[in-house]
Amino acid sequence: MTKPSKDTLSRMIAVVGERNAITDAADMARYMKDWRNHYPGVSPLVVRPGSTEEVSRIVAIAHDTGTAIVPQSGNTGLVGGSTTSADGTQVLLSLDRMQRIIEVDATDYTITVEAGAILQNIQQAAEQADRLFPLSLAAQGMCRIGGNLSTNAGGLNVLAYGSARDLCLGLEVVLSDGRIWNGLRKLRKDNTGYDLRDIFIGSEGTLGIITAAVLKLFPRPRAYETAFVAVPSPQAAVDLLAITKDLSGNRAVAFELMPQICLDFTEKHTACRNPLATRSPWYVLTELADTPNGTFERIFEAAVERKLASDAVIAQSEAQRQAMWDIREQMPDTQRLEGGSIKGDISVPVSRIAQYIEEATRGVLDYMPAARVLAFGHMGDGNLHVNVSQPVGAIEEEFLGHWDAITAITHGVALKLQGSISAEHGMGRMKRDKMRAIKSPVEFEMMRNLKRLFDPKGILNPGKVLPE
Amino acid sequence: MTKPSKDTLSRMIAVVGERNAITDAADMARYMKDWRNHYPGVSPLVVRPGSTEEVSRIVAIAHDTGTAIVPQSGNTGLVGGSTTSADGTQVLLSLDRMQRIIEVDATDYTITVEAGAILQNIQQAAEQADRLFPLSLAAQGMCRIGGNLSTNAGGLNVLAYGSARDLCLGLEVVLSDGRIWNGLRKLRKDNTGYDLRDIFIGSEGTLGIITAAVLKLFPRPRAYETAFVAVPSPQAAVDLLAITKDLSGNRAVAFELMPQICLDFTEKHTACRNPLATRSPWYVLTELADTPNGTFERIFEAAVERKLASDAVIAQSEAQRQAMWDIREQMPDTQRLEGGSIKGDISVPVSRIAQYIEEATRGVLDYMPAARVLAFGHMGDGNLHVNVSQPVGAIEEEFLGHWDAITAITHGVALKLQGSISAEHGMGRMKRDKMRAIKSPVEFEMMRNLKRLFDPKGILNPGKVLPE
Repeated sequence: MTKPSKDTLSRMIAVVGERNAITDAADMARYMKDWRNHYPGVSPLVVRPGSTEEVSRIVAIAHDTGTAIVPQSGNTGLVGGSTTSADGTQVLLSLDRMQRIIEVDATDYTITVEAGAILQNIQQAAEQADRLFPLSLAAQGMCRIGGNLSTNAGGLNVLAYGSARDLCLGLEVVLSDGRIWNGLRKLRKDNTGYDLRDIFIGSEGTLGIITAAVLKLFPRPRAYETAFVAVPSPQAAVDLLAITKDLSGNRAVAFELMPQICLDFTEKHTACRNPLATRSPWYVLTELADTPNGTFERIFEAAVERKLASDAVIAQSEAQRQAMWDIREQMPDTQRLEGGSIKGDISVPVSRIAQYIEEATRGVLDYMPAARVLAFGHMGDGNLHVNVSQPVGAIEEEFLGHWDAITAITHGVALKLQGSISAEHGMGRMKRDKMRAIKSPVEFEMMRNLKRLFDPKGILNPGKVLPE
Repeated sequence: MTKPSKDTLSRMIAVVGERNAITDAADMARYMKDWRNHYPGVSPLVVRPGSTEEVSRIVAIAHDTGTAIVPQSGNTGLVGGSTTSADGTQVLLSLDRMQRIIEVDATDYTITVEAGAILQNIQQAAEQADRLFPLSLAAQGMCRIGGNLSTNAGGLNVLAYGSARDLCLGLEVVLSDGRIWNGLRKLRKDNTGYDLRDIFIGSEGTLGIITAAVLKLFPRPRAYETAFVAVPSPQAAVDLLAITKDLSGNRAVAFELMPQICLDFTEKHTACRNPLATRSPWYVLTELADTPNGTFERIFEAAVERKLASDAVIAQSEAQRQAMWDIREQMPDTQRLEGGSIKGDISVPVSRIAQYIEEATRGVLDYMPAARVLAFGHMGDGNLHVNVSQPVGAIEEEFLGHWDAITAITHGVALKLQGSISAEHGMGRMKRDKMRAIKSPVEFEMMRNLKRLFDPKGILNPGKVLPE
C-alpha cells in the first residue's frame, strides 16, 4: 500500500465535513494507540462518518483509489485489531459518532442499534424496556457494539446467552466496494439462502464494515443466586459445573474459576476480601438466574458429598453480590500492579480444563521456575485467561522479552488438547502470523479465499486476522 | 451437465463396492422420490459411502469428471432439496450408511455424530447420558443430522434452544474438490479467524457435504408444565408470549399457535379431542421447562386480567401432555385428509404475527372465498405454517393449480412485513427461482459469489438454493 494522495484525503474529508475529520497528529492520538499500547499507529486521517451513507461513500473512495481503511469503534481490543499500521498508509474510520439506539422492541425482544453504540448504553436501553441485553464484559463502558460484533466478543455471560454472534439477528454492512448490504432483519428464523451475517461477525473488519445491527433481548432475571465456592482443584470445578448445570436446570449464567494467587493479588492491592474464611487452592464464582430458592444449597450439598467443594457463601444482598464480582473484575488491574504480565486467552473442551491447567502451568514453570501463573476466567465456556506474572523482583522489560516463549508454551498445550489460542479476543495483529501454523492448509485456504472474495483489493483492515 | 460416463460411474462404484452402489431403477426408487413427491428424480447411480474418506474419494472423482452430486441424508425435506434432477445427469450420494454416534461426552455436554445419524437416535443417545439434544421435529424418526444441519432445521424447541445452527459446535465437511475440512471442534468459544461452520450450515449441500458434526447437549429438564390455552386472537397470543417469557424467566421451550379450524380437522379425523370445554377462535400450546410449581398459573392469571386468555388446562400427567402434543402433531396428516393443501412456511417479526395472519387470510379469501386458511405453528419464533386447504367439495388437482397464485399472496404479505418466505424448510428446488426477487442485488450477488468460490465447477447439488 502507498500513502493516500492529498486528493484522496480531501475527497474523504468532504464526505464528513472538516469538523469530523482529524489530520492533526496530537488530536488523533487516542485513535492511534491500542488498549495495551502494543501496536501504535500513524495515519494521515481519522474520518468520523455520521451515517451508513457516509461510511459507504468513504469506502467507495477507498476502493476507487486503493486506500486502506481501518475501522475502529471503541478501540478496546486486546490484539491490535483496530489501529492502523505505523507507516502512515492507512486511513482510520471511526464509528464513534454513530451511537444511536434506533429502536427497542419489547414485544419482539429486539434492539436495533448503530455500530458505534456503546455496549453499556445498549444494556441500559434494554433495561428501560424491562429487557436484558446480556453481553457483558470489562470494557462495557467504552467498547462499542460494532467492535463487539466484529470480534465476536464473549465476556461473563456466554455460558447462558452465547457470544456476540449468538446475540445478533441482523446486520447492516458496508462492503469493500462501498455498497451497503441491508440485512437488518428481526427474524428468529430465516432459511432463505446462505448465512451472510456470520461471515462478517468475527471477521474483525477485514471483510466488511458493520454499521448497524439488530440484537436479541431476553427477559430480565428477577433474582440471582451468586455464590463464591472453595474447590480443591480445577477438575472439581469442572465436575461442579456439570452438577450446577444439571441441578439448576441450566440456569447458571456465569461460572468463573480463579486460583488463590488471584485472591492474594486482589487482597494485596485492593479493599476486596475473600468472602470465605477458608483459604483454598481454587475458587469458583457462579451465578444462577431465576432459580427456586435453595437451588444453590442443593448444588453445594451434592458437591460436598462428592468432595468437589469445601466451603461456599451465597451473596445475601446486592452489595455482597457486587463485592464478589469486584474480586473477579479487579484481576487485570491487580496483575498490572505486580509488574509484567504475559497474557493468554485460550479455550479447550470443558472436560480438558484440568489437564490444560496442569500441563500449561508445568510447562511455564519448567521454563521459568519463579514465574507466577494465573489461570482464571470463564471456565464454564472452557475459556481461561492464562496470564503469567513476572517473578517477584524481576525487571519488567526483561520479563516481557519472554512473551513469545511463554505464549508458545500456553498456546502449545491448548492446541495439543484441540483448543483455541484465541477464545474471545480475536487474532488482530497480535496473532495473525500464527494462522498458518494453527490451521490446516484447507482451512487456511478457505479463509484466504473469503478475504479475496469480499475484499479483492485488500483495503479493509489490512494486516489483521490473516498474515500479510 | 452431461450424463456421467460409464467409466466415471465405475470409478465411483469401486470406491464403495458393488453392494453399496445402486444402479437398478426399482431399487433406487426410494432415493429418487422427495417427501411430497413434487420433484421425482432420475439418476444413473445411488452411491452409499461408509466413511468420510469414501465421500471424499467420490467427490474427487466428480470434481475430476465434472459430474453433479446430490447429497441426501434422510430425504424428508419439503422443498425438493435432496433429490436429483429428472434428466439422469446427477449421481445421488446417500449418507444413510454413516449413522454412527461417535461419542457422547456428558462433561462437555457434546455429542459427536456422523452425518447419517438419525435425529431420534441422537436424542436417545443423549438421553442415555442424562442429557438433552433439543432439536425436535415431526420427521425425527427418519431425518438425519446431516440434512438437519444442511437445512438449518427448526422444529418445536427453537424458542428455547435455537435452530440446528445454534446447536452445532463443529463440522466435518467434504469440499467440492474432494478435500476434507476437519472442523470437528468441541469448543464453546473460538475466535481464530472466519466462521466457516455457518457457511455450510443451511447451504443445503450446495457448498460442501457435511459428513460429521459436534453438537451441543443440554441438561435434561426434570419437569414440564404443558398448557393448552384458549386465546381470543393472534395478537393476544403475541402478548401472552411476552408475559410467558417474562414470568417464566425465559423457560418457555415451546409456544405453538393454532386456529379452531385445526382442531376441527383433528377432531373429525382422529381420536384427539380439544382438552378444553371452551371453543375458541385460537389456541396456544405452550410448554415450560423446570419452572417452580405454579408458574403457569401465574402467567394465566396475568393473561386473564389483560383479557388475553379465556380458559386453559395444564397437563396433569405425561399422558395428558402427550395428548396435547398429539393435536399439534396430527395437523399435517389431518390436512391431507381434507384434500389439497397449499403449504407455506413463513416468518415475520413476532410483533407482526397478528397483522400477518389478518392480511394473508384476507388476501387468500379475496382470491378464493371458500378456501380454508390454516395459519398455525411455531409462533414463538415468528414462524407460521400457512397452509391453505381446498374448499369443501373442490377438485384437488384443480385446486393445486392455484399453488403459485396463493403462495404469491402468503409470501407477498410476509415480504411486505420484512419477513421470510422460508423460515425453516429452506429453498431447495421449490423456491430457488424466487431468490432474485426476494434478495437485494448485493445480497444475491454475495450468495452467487459464495457458490462460485466453494463450488467453482457447480457440481454440488446443482439447481438448489440459487436459480440455475
